[in-house]
Amino acid sequence: MTVHRLSPEILSAIEGAVGQNGVAADPAGMAKYLGDWAGDYRGNALAVLRPASVAEVQALMRLCNELGLGVVPQGGNTGLVSGAIDSKGGLVVVSLERMNAIRQIDTENFTLQADAGCVLQTIKDACEARDCLFPLALGAQGSCQIGGNAATNAGGVNVLRYGMARDLILGLEVVLADGELWNGICGLRKNNSGYDLKQLFIGSEGTLGIITGVEVKLFPKPAKTETAYLGLASFEAAVTLFNRARRECSDLISAFEIIGSECIELARLIDPGTRAPVSAPVQVLVELSSSAAIDLNALLAGFLGDALESGLVTDAVLAASTAQARSFWAIREGLVEGQAKRGYHVRTDLSVKISDIPALIEQARRFVAYDHPGWIPLAYGHAGDGNIHFNVLPPAELAEHEARARGAEVIAGLYEIAVGLGGSISAEHGIGRSRRQEFWARLSPTHRRMVAALKSALDPKGLMNPGCLLPETETFR
Amino acid sequence: MTVHRLSPEILSAIEGAVGQNGVAADPAGMAKYLGDWAGDYRGNALAVLRPASVAEVQALMRLCNELGLGVVPQGGNTGLVSGAIDSKGGLVVVSLERMNAIRQIDTENFTLQADAGCVLQTIKDACEARDCLFPLALGAQGSCQIGGNAATNAGGVNVLRYGMARDLILGLEVVLADGELWNGICGLRKNNSGYDLKQLFIGSEGTLGIITGVEVKLFPKPAKTETAYLGLASFEAAVTLFNRARRECSDLISAFEIIGSECIELARLIDPGTRAPVSAPVQVLVELSSSAAIDLNALLAGFLGDALESGLVTDAVLAASTAQARSFWAIREGLVEGQAKRGYHVRTDLSVKISDIPALIEQARRFVAYDHPGWIPLAYGHAGDGNIHFNVLPPAELAEHEARARGAEVIAGLYEIAVGLGGSISAEHGIGRSRRQEFWARLSPTHRRMVAALKSALDPKGLMNPGCLLPETETFR
Repeated sequence: MTVHRLSPEILSAIEGAVGQNGVAADPAGMAKYLGDWAGDYRGNALAVLRPASVAEVQALMRLCNELGLGVVPQGGNTGLVSGAIDSKGGLVVVSLERMNAIRQIDTENFTLQADAGCVLQTIKDACEARDCLFPLALGAQGSCQIGGNAATNAGGVNVLRYGMARDLILGLEVVLADGELWNGICGLRKNNSGYDLKQLFIGSEGTLGIITGVEVKLFPKPAKTETAYLGLASFEAAVTLFNRARRECSDLISAFEIIGSECIELARLIDPGTRAPVSAPVQVLVELSSSAAIDLNALLAGFLGDALESGLVTDAVLAASTAQARSFWAIREGLVEGQAKRGYHVRTDLSVKISDIPALIEQARRFVAYDHPGWIPLAYGHAGDGNIHFNVLPPAELAEHEARARGAEVIAGLYEIAVGLGGSISAEHGIGRSRRQEFWARLSPTHRRMVAALKSALDPKGLMNPGCLLPETETFR
Repeated sequence: MTVHRLSPEILSAIEGAVGQNGVAADPAGMAKYLGDWAGDYRGNALAVLRPASVAEVQALMRLCNELGLGVVPQGGNTGLVSGAIDSKGGLVVVSLERMNAIRQIDTENFTLQADAGCVLQTIKDACEARDCLFPLALGAQGSCQIGGNAATNAGGVNVLRYGMARDLILGLEVVLADGELWNGICGLRKNNSGYDLKQLFIGSEGTLGIITGVEVKLFPKPAKTETAYLGLASFEAAVTLFNRARRECSDLISAFEIIGSECIELARLIDPGTRAPVSAPVQVLVELSSSAAIDLNALLAGFLGDALESGLVTDAVLAASTAQARSFWAIREGLVEGQAKRGYHVRTDLSVKISDIPALIEQARRFVAYDHPGWIPLAYGHAGDGNIHFNVLPPAELAEHEARARGAEVIAGLYEIAVGLGGSISAEHGIGRSRRQEFWARLSPTHRRMVAALKSALDPKGLMNPGCLLPETETFR
């Protein structure tokens, strides 16, 4: 059974839980919570609720549990898989945006605690001001929230060195489906005591509870950063280069991004003056960082010198200034913004073994060229993680509804290619609602049973983000 | 209901599952599986079963599930908390020792797959021969098995740089309580696709399934290693030094071990010629490693020069040869072996915030001196993780049974001190049976309910390692 509207009695009970300021039930007030950043999805909700404290989240969940009312937890709403946007209606959105304080920064122990709704950039800035680094770095960092980063196990450009959100999280505080609070924040670096419950919630996309607080690891702020932009003849060469870089640059590589030259044009949509520093079919943005005591410039220059001499790299520009390094990153960031500006496009987030990257790109390009002529393939991504965003732009003249219909076929074909190589259809963006069917269909029966058993164990009534990640089930008793 | 013996029919069914060679039910054949490495525990079992393949583990678990027969999964039996030793009887031990092959080493993608029963040292050696590093490093590495490392989330001396076993594991293969196989090995570095099921089994100490295969991350073998042995005036100084080292040595510190000078005598029980390279109340063993392109010797020498000049370090010896570096490590390893040679002693595995290490040690020493005069406190551990093994030797003249009774009081007191500082009673060794009560008593009701819900979800009959980690429940229908 689906609830179609909230009765005045229920609305008033909800106001009792989160206060009048915490409730929006009119279309205008709800609008900004019901559309995603990329403009791909529009959602519905009975109301958008914005609790201002852990106690309010608990009161709200106790009420929802009593009513059998399903909730969609929402962070900065920058996800790309419709994990926080539900189009069916009958649910309430719970936005964490009012719970946005940094609770504590402990520079002696390199830890930080924050409310779930704290914006990632706010955390990064606060750390930087204290000579620390919180290394999670992604395009949406100005809007995404740390609770959402945890719930979706966010990735980004620094995963190679520092790991996914999962690897950076020391503790979580979570309100469960029945309103109970689980406090798993303890300030310790090492605590091997039974089931590591936080792991359940990381990457569970709001389907097991509402994360209200997060504790993360910090790192010393690197004193030195060196950035280079390289040209190579092929993706094979890029993979070989990465392997050499791993061996020769110790653990100091913080990013190794690969960009097919066809992507550069997109960055020009954002800044028409954009010019790649090299002209080569495959381009690599590599960044190293370290403390002051290491001659990082010599390390990178020596490595690149050898790579140029051996012919592995055909062209290399080592940034001579911070401004030049920024201009390299502007290309990488501009191509993402540029493709968003083009409107609807096929967006993927594939991963394969690093050594299979060239095969993935080659097969994907061939597939698009043969089966979908006129569509424009773009290959870029976090090569050091085996993660390629192989995206495809529809022909400019195609009407959007036609492009979307055809785009679904393009996506299906690309998924087949990745899976055929033993890869994943979700390297970092998650499953949400948009990839749920493709994801679920590929799981073994045993895997499905385990997922369902966990879901039932922690959310027996199916109230938490129904329709996300797992197949939809009845959410109202 | 507890089974007291296996009927001939059941024994024959078990032989059908794992073969005659896979069954030992006589005291002599079972002996080596029923005592732990440290000699602290003696166990009982109806039989010790040694399947030789994943299919045999499945057949065995199907049978146990049918019979309602509880199993104790066992790796190298080097754990310190009686996780693989059960004294009650009525259970079968399932040893993975016959499943000991390395399945694959992929040096291009820096991954390795192995059977659960493969000995850690075998894996480390195979990696080294291929110029790779598998960084998990602990005293028991010559006997412990990778499946046990995964099941207990093993720690060790390289956690600081490379993380716990959890951080090194890319995939697991697990036979569930009902004999179903879950294959979570995929060869990918990045795969953010729904609940990360492997996280459940890592650190679950055999209570949710039997790990049969493990996939781990490898690293390039460091070309350079620099080791130094330092003397300091206090634990406060050691914590300050660690903080500086983190900032100044980038991410190249692979170990930062702290040793109270009172521990040196123990190393002499193993090698009477042992002499600490420095004479100071607090001693630190620091190791850095990197690729060939970094002047690691200059980095460490420069850092130590500053630390000496500022008076933070009172004495420092930078190893001039591999042999000298080994001699430093021999002190660290010898003190562990030496205390084992002393027979029964209080062994702890406490963690606190790094900045609380001095308070932990001071309070613990004061407690022992006042409440247990004559007992000899020893403080050493992985300071960079906030993990101190604060152990206490009984007076030499005390009879063992008296020492054990008194030892329980000493442990309780030390746990109170750690918990009072917001710390953990299990930084890395796990809970097992020996810490189960202390652990469980300190959990919140919500935490307990979540643990129990997970246990029921995956092991509804309570067959997996009953009595370990969770309170004992009825294990036979």
